[in-house]
Amino acid sequence: MRATVLHSPGDIRLDTVPDPQLRHDTDAIVRVVAACVCGSDLWPYRGLNGEQTEPQQIGHEHVGIVEQVGAEVADVKVGDFVIAPFKHSDNTCVHCRNGVHTSCVNGGFYTGCQAELVRVPNADGTLVTVPGEVDDALVPHLLTLSDVFPTGHHCAVSAGVTAGSTVAVVGDGAVGLSAVLAAKRLGASTVIAMSRHEARQQIAREFGADHIVESRGKEGAAEVREILGGIGADAVLECVGTHESMKQAFLSLRPGGTVGYVGVPHGVELPINVMFGNNFGLAGGVAPVRAYLPELLAEVLDGSLRPGAVFDLTLPLERVADAYRSMDERAAIKVLLRP
Amino acid sequence: MRATVLHSPGDIRLDTVPDPQLRHDTDAIVRVVAACVCGSDLWPYRGLNGEQTEPQQIGHEHVGIVEQVGAEVADVKVGDFVIAPFKHSDNTCVHCRNGVHTSCVNGGFYTGCQAELVRVPNADGTLVTVPGEVDDALVPHLLTLSDVFPTGHHCAVSAGVTAGSTVAVVGDGAVGLSAVLAAKRLGASTVIAMSRHEARQQIAREFGADHIVESRGKEGAAEVREILGGIGADAVLECVGTHESMKQAFLSLRPGGTVGYVGVPHGVELPINVMFGNNFGLAGGVAPVRAYLPELLAEVLDGSLRPGAVFDLTLPLERVADAYRSMDERAAIKVLLRP
Repeated sequence: MRATVLHSPGDIRLDTVPDPQLRHDTDAIVRVVAACVCGSDLWPYRGLNGEQTEPQQIGHEHVGIVEQVGAEVADVKVGDFVIAPFKHSDNTCVHCRNGVHTSCVNGGFYTGCQAELVRVPNADGTLVTVPGEVDDALVPHLLTLSDVFPTGHHCAVSAGVTAGSTVAVVGDGAVGLSAVLAAKRLGASTVIAMSRHEARQQIAREFGADHIVESRGKEGAAEVREILGGIGADAVLECVGTHESMKQAFLSLRPGGTVGYVGVPHGVELPINVMFGNNFGLAGGVAPVRAYLPELLAEVLDGSLRPGAVFDLTLPLERVADAYRSMDERAAIKVLLRP
Repeated sequence: MRATVLHSPGDIRLDTVPDPQLRHDTDAIVRVVAACVCGSDLWPYRGLNGEQTEPQQIGHEHVGIVEQVGAEVADVKVGDFVIAPFKHSDNTCVHCRNGVHTSCVNGGFYTGCQAELVRVPNADGTLVTVPGEVDDALVPHLLTLSDVFPTGHHCAVSAGVTAGSTVAVVGDGAVGLSAVLAAKRLGASTVIAMSRHEARQQIAREFGADHIVESRGKEGAAEVREILGGIGADAVLECVGTHESMKQAFLSLRPGGTVGYVGVPHGVELPINVMFGNNFGLAGGVAPVRAYLPELLAEVLDGSLRPGAVFDLTLPLERVADAYRSMDERAAIKVLLRP
C-alpha cells in the first residue's frame, strides 16, 4: 500500500510499504477514507522532537471503513464507517471508566494513518462506528472528531468553561479554532480569539468568537482585560505548547481562573509563584478523545455541530509533502488528505 | 504595647513597641484575644525567605475585640469579637465578588498579629464579626478560621474534592490536618493522611482520616495506590510547599486527578510533561479566607465543625520564642498564643 513516511526532518514522502497485518485478536485493519496532518506532526517534521534515527510512518487522525477484524473483535464489524481516536484504549479499565482513556492501562499510541490502510489496536474499545450511510459532505466534520475538535473541547472542559464564562484562546491553529467553537458550545458568554491571520480570524468568527485580539504579550493581555471590563478571562485556552504561548495564557487570566492546555509542551516552564499568588489553576493534557466521542458525534450527526471548517485545504494523499509544507509555512490551517 | 519582633533568623522576641494607630478611615484597631504561629512564619524564622535587613513585627492570624474604628468603618463596631483573615480586602471589588479576596484590588498583606494590638486595614471588608457572647472554649476553633482551616479547605476545594472523592494529603502540619478535616467535610469517601508522627496521625484520625501512610516517595505512592484499588487518588492535597512534597503529590495522583496546593512554594519545579501526559491538574494558591468565612463560621458556631485540635500547645504571648522553637523543632503542631 501507499503510506506517508518521514525519512528525516523535512523529507516526507508517499512510499510503497507492506500492508499492515492483524497482530492481535483485538486489532482491526481500517481502509482510510480521510486522514489529516496535525500540528503535532510538525514537531518531528521540523526536527524538534529529538534526533530521528530511522524512517517512520506517520499520521494519527483518520476515519475509514473497517476492512478486517481480529478474532476477539465483537462490536466493530467489517464495513463499518469508523472514527479512530489518536490513542487506542480498551474502554473498560479504571482510567477509561474515569474518562481518561489516554491513560488506559492497555492503551497507547499507534501511527501510520496518513496511508491507505492502518492497523488499529483495541478496535472495540477505540473505534466508534458512525451509524447508517455516511454522506461524503459529512466526512470533514467526522474527521475532526479523531483528534482536533475533541482536543479543543478538552481544553475548554479542563479550563472549566461553562455557561457565562469569559474565555480567551491562545493559538489560532486548528486546535485553537476548535477551542473557540467548543467554548461557545459550552455556553461561554464572551470568547476572545488571539490571532493575527485574516483567514483564521474569519473562521474564529464563524465559530463564535466575539472579539479578535491581534496583539501579544502584555499588550495583548491588556486588550483582553479592556474587553472584559478590567480583568483577565475566567478561562484561557492554551493551544500551542510553547513557553511564550503559556506565558501569554497566564498573562490573560483573571485571579482564580484556569488555564486549559492541550498544546504538547515544548520548553514550557510554569511560573509557580505567579500561579500561587493569583490562584491560577492549570488543567488539561493529552485529550481523551474516546471519552467525548459519543456526545460530540451525536451533534455532528444531527447537524448542530460543524467543526469541519478547520480544513481549508484538501489534497490527494499523493501530495502529502505539499500538505506538510503548507502547514509548516502556515499557508494552510489544516490539510485533509484523501487516499 | 508588647509585640513579637523577628530581629534576625532565629532571634524572635517580645518587645515593647508603640501602639498601632489608625492610618486610614477604613482601618480598625483590634485587641488580640488569641493569635498563633503559622508554618509560613517559620520560613523567615529559618532565614529561608531571603536576607532580612531590619527587625520586623510578625504574625498574621488572630481573633480579637475591636478597640477603635476609622471614620468610614460602618459594619464593624467597637466591642465586636472579630475573626481576621490574614489578608485584608474590601469585599466589593471584582476579584472579591469572584471569591478571590486575596487578589482584591485594594487589599494586601498586613502583619503584627502576635501582639496585644493590631491595625487591620479595610476593616469592613476584612473582619467578620462573631455574633453574641463568645465562649472562651470556642476561641481555638474561631482562631483557626483566620487562616489554617480555610487554607486546608481551600486546598480541598481547589482539588475538586466532592462527595465520593478519594483523597491523599501530603503534609501533617496544621494545614495538612485541616485539609483532612476539610476533605471529609466535603464528602470524601476515603482520606489518606501521609504522616510519620504518632501525635499528628492521632489528630488526622480524629479529623476523619481513613488510612495513614508513613512511607514517602515511590513507596508511599505505591501504598496509596494499594489502598485505592490500584490507582492514585482523585485529589491530592499538597500542604507543605517544597519540591519534594509536590513531587510526592503528583506521584500519588491518578490520571485526570487534581493536585490542590496551599503550601507556599519554595523551590518547586512543576513536571509539565508528566502533568500533560497524565492530565494531572493543579489548582490552589494563597487561600481567600474571607470568601469561606460565612459558611465555615456558621458550622463552628453550631458545633458541627471543630477544627481547633490543631492547637496542641497554648502559651502566653511572653513565651512566643518558645512557641517558634517548638514549631521549628516539630515538637508542637501549632501554638496558640494568649496576650
